[in-house]
Amino acid sequence: MEKTLIEVKYVITCNRNFDIIKNAAITFENGKITYAGSSKNIPYSKSYFDNIIVEEDGIAIPGLINCHTHAAMNLFRGACDDLPLKLWLEKKIWPLESKLTSEDIVYGNLLSFLEMLSCGTTTFVDFYYFNELIEALKIIPLRAVATIAFLDQVPDGEVYWRRFKELQKYFDMANSIKDGLVKVALGPHAIYTCSKELLEKIVEVSEKHNLLVHMHVSETLEEVQFSNKKFGLTPIEYLDKIGILNEKMIAAHCVHLKERDINILQEKRVNCVHNPSSNMKLADGVMPLSDLLKANINVCLGTDGAASSNSLNLFNEMRTAILLQRGVNLDPTFPSAKDALLMATVNGAKAIGLYNHIGSIEANKKADIVIINGRSPRLCPEYDIVSNIVYSCTPADIIFTIVNGRILYERGKFPNIDMEKIVKEFNEKALKLLSTN
Amino acid sequence: MEKTLIEVKYVITCNRNFDIIKNAAITFENGKITYAGSSKNIPYSKSYFDNIIVEEDGIAIPGLINCHTHAAMNLFRGACDDLPLKLWLEKKIWPLESKLTSEDIVYGNLLSFLEMLSCGTTTFVDFYYFNELIEALKIIPLRAVATIAFLDQVPDGEVYWRRFKELQKYFDMANSIKDGLVKVALGPHAIYTCSKELLEKIVEVSEKHNLLVHMHVSETLEEVQFSNKKFGLTPIEYLDKIGILNEKMIAAHCVHLKERDINILQEKRVNCVHNPSSNMKLADGVMPLSDLLKANINVCLGTDGAASSNSLNLFNEMRTAILLQRGVNLDPTFPSAKDALLMATVNGAKAIGLYNHIGSIEANKKADIVIINGRSPRLCPEYDIVSNIVYSCTPADIIFTIVNGRILYERGKFPNIDMEKIVKEFNEKALKLLSTN
Repeated sequence: MEKTLIEVKYVITCNRNFDIIKNAAITFENGKITYAGSSKNIPYSKSYFDNIIVEEDGIAIPGLINCHTHAAMNLFRGACDDLPLKLWLEKKIWPLESKLTSEDIVYGNLLSFLEMLSCGTTTFVDFYYFNELIEALKIIPLRAVATIAFLDQVPDGEVYWRRFKELQKYFDMANSIKDGLVKVALGPHAIYTCSKELLEKIVEVSEKHNLLVHMHVSETLEEVQFSNKKFGLTPIEYLDKIGILNEKMIAAHCVHLKERDINILQEKRVNCVHNPSSNMKLADGVMPLSDLLKANINVCLGTDGAASSNSLNLFNEMRTAILLQRGVNLDPTFPSAKDALLMATVNGAKAIGLYNHIGSIEANKKADIVIINGRSPRLCPEYDIVSNIVYSCTPADIIFTIVNGRILYERGKFPNIDMEKIVKEFNEKALKLLSTN
Repeated sequence: MEKTLIEVKYVITCNRNFDIIKNAAITFENGKITYAGSSKNIPYSKSYFDNIIVEEDGIAIPGLINCHTHAAMNLFRGACDDLPLKLWLEKKIWPLESKLTSEDIVYGNLLSFLEMLSCGTTTFVDFYYFNELIEALKIIPLRAVATIAFLDQVPDGEVYWRRFKELQKYFDMANSIKDGLVKVALGPHAIYTCSKELLEKIVEVSEKHNLLVHMHVSETLEEVQFSNKKFGLTPIEYLDKIGILNEKMIAAHCVHLKERDINILQEKRVNCVHNPSSNMKLADGVMPLSDLLKANINVCLGTDGAASSNSLNLFNEMRTAILLQRGVNLDPTFPSAKDALLMATVNGAKAIGLYNHIGSIEANKKADIVIINGRSPRLCPEYDIVSNIVYSCTPADIIFTIVNGRILYERGKFPNIDMEKIVKEFNEKALKLLSTN
């Protein structure tokens, strides 16, 4: 693989000291960062590199990590607006999903990859159709956590139980993507769609194979009421009792939490994924993000699927997450722009067990990097560049999105990817699906 | 001026029927729309036009109207984060403003125009430095309401009283911008910075010259407490008693409102400007937008200045406004994407008394038009294009921004505008200012 040198005005490393390096250089080869520091001390001569990129006004940040999405649900974008979650799921999404073909889903994934790359996302946690996700990742290689979905409180529940016997098939599919870009998670959908037995089986399999567990948790008031009524416990208490809450748990939403729930999440080192746009649009409520951050709980960010939040732009989630807390808590000092950027990078990497590999720009980490145009009229003056990026950066300001050392997005274009074809096929398939809805 | 024909896939007219025209054409000359309808019925032959633009996947919307900003405060973007409004104003903004030179402000305005144009804004209501706004508008001709600021509960308050004797000078300045692009408003800053006498004088002058009045109203709890303590009334009740509330009032913020306040706003046909990002970031609180809309009050949108909200992107405000209400009111059905688009177009036009001229794409209105790329991976599928535009559109998706028939923005560039010079000068001036802060 090419040896690359990128020179930029600033690198926001997101390392432990939150160092911001001015007049900086990043070098990488074989997908791995070999140097990130002052451009004066590059430990190689320029002739060493196959590819030298100089962006005089560029600002490098770690690739963003979207910790909860259903990527191919962009097929339903705009078709299910203005409904509460239960109706949204039962009246719109499930009937639509019953008509999906495998090819529809692959194109849904491919289009979502274009959207995510154009918005600076290099890694995402997907909770949808495993096989079709892998098919799409063979064509456009983002970094991903692929979730094997499980739910048995539905008519065809036994289908999912069979998956426990086919785990090796899933592992093999994930491994078919080179460079170790794909990690596998187990995905019990939610407490209201999974039996206690299923959740207990997930605990056993997660321990045996050291697998992440990705689940919808405490998303709506209905879910809390269901849990209280059925188990006499909050969803968090119930899940804790089952033994599923630990540092391998990626708990999406966590909107409705009592003080005791927050204590459990803290004690069990659960990773919580905040999806503010989806929670607001579906009127689920507001996650107590500030309380979770103050309790040192690892909170990361997600867009949810584009059928709920209508966008896979993680910059929206960074901005919305901190604005929402301030507006609701009437505290203008917390959380800050820096908190938002850490949630979208470092915390995401920790949540998926990849902090040694991604989440910051440091030597020996993977080259997952986004280069932003610091001279954009939307990002001037360059006084507080972190604030500018979190509050004001848009896809129009992104120059490069680099995953594992490969430039997958550059100034509105996707090198070596047939964007026109993907958009055309996607539109045809989605409109056909929706026309019969 | 050039005779122009634009062919697009859709025109979202925002007319009274909210017609969406497929396979559409818009024609305009001398800044005025001459036709908006099916591309099959264009009432001219193609040879009639000097300029023909065909965007096969284009979606035309009316230019967005930003009804509350302090454009040149982008000079302080990122420099005053994480403070409540009172400290923000007294400890940061006022000391910084005391050091501003006229040239600083002109460049602040010019940079803000680049940002606004790139985000689809064609008209804005500015509340800052009048002269420097006019200077900047001579260089980049957006449509604007220029506000003459008044406040006398400050050390140099008599300066502002003198302005009443110099009104003709302001009118002449506004008229120096051709094509009637600039309208004048009187701007009493707020109840806590203006004496009762000053507000009464504003009423008199507004009536005499038929001028809009633009004011900060009920922005913070402190303001409400101040009003209660000093006048025994809410800010709205106090302003009503003075007689300043009517259809010429553009009341920015209106965050803290009692039921009686809402009744007054409705009865007096006041225009309210919602600035959700600013209100959230400064932790002012949440405007009861849904209640105002249900009371048929004309609510439009504003970004506030980039020193408070950090961005002049009105797409953020459309999206944030409706998400916030749903999240806080726990109602996923209201407001809708269509409500947001109307707030940013029709309602804005009504608020500034220009509904006969702008706010929708119709024959005989001004050619203030934004063309969006409907094939963007962020805006597919083209199922509900209004939803896509409100929730998902970013500056990267905007192809053209046209003001009064002039293309001021095209695919990341600004024809006939020296963007590089503006960005460079702006950055130098802003960093010099902030370095001594």
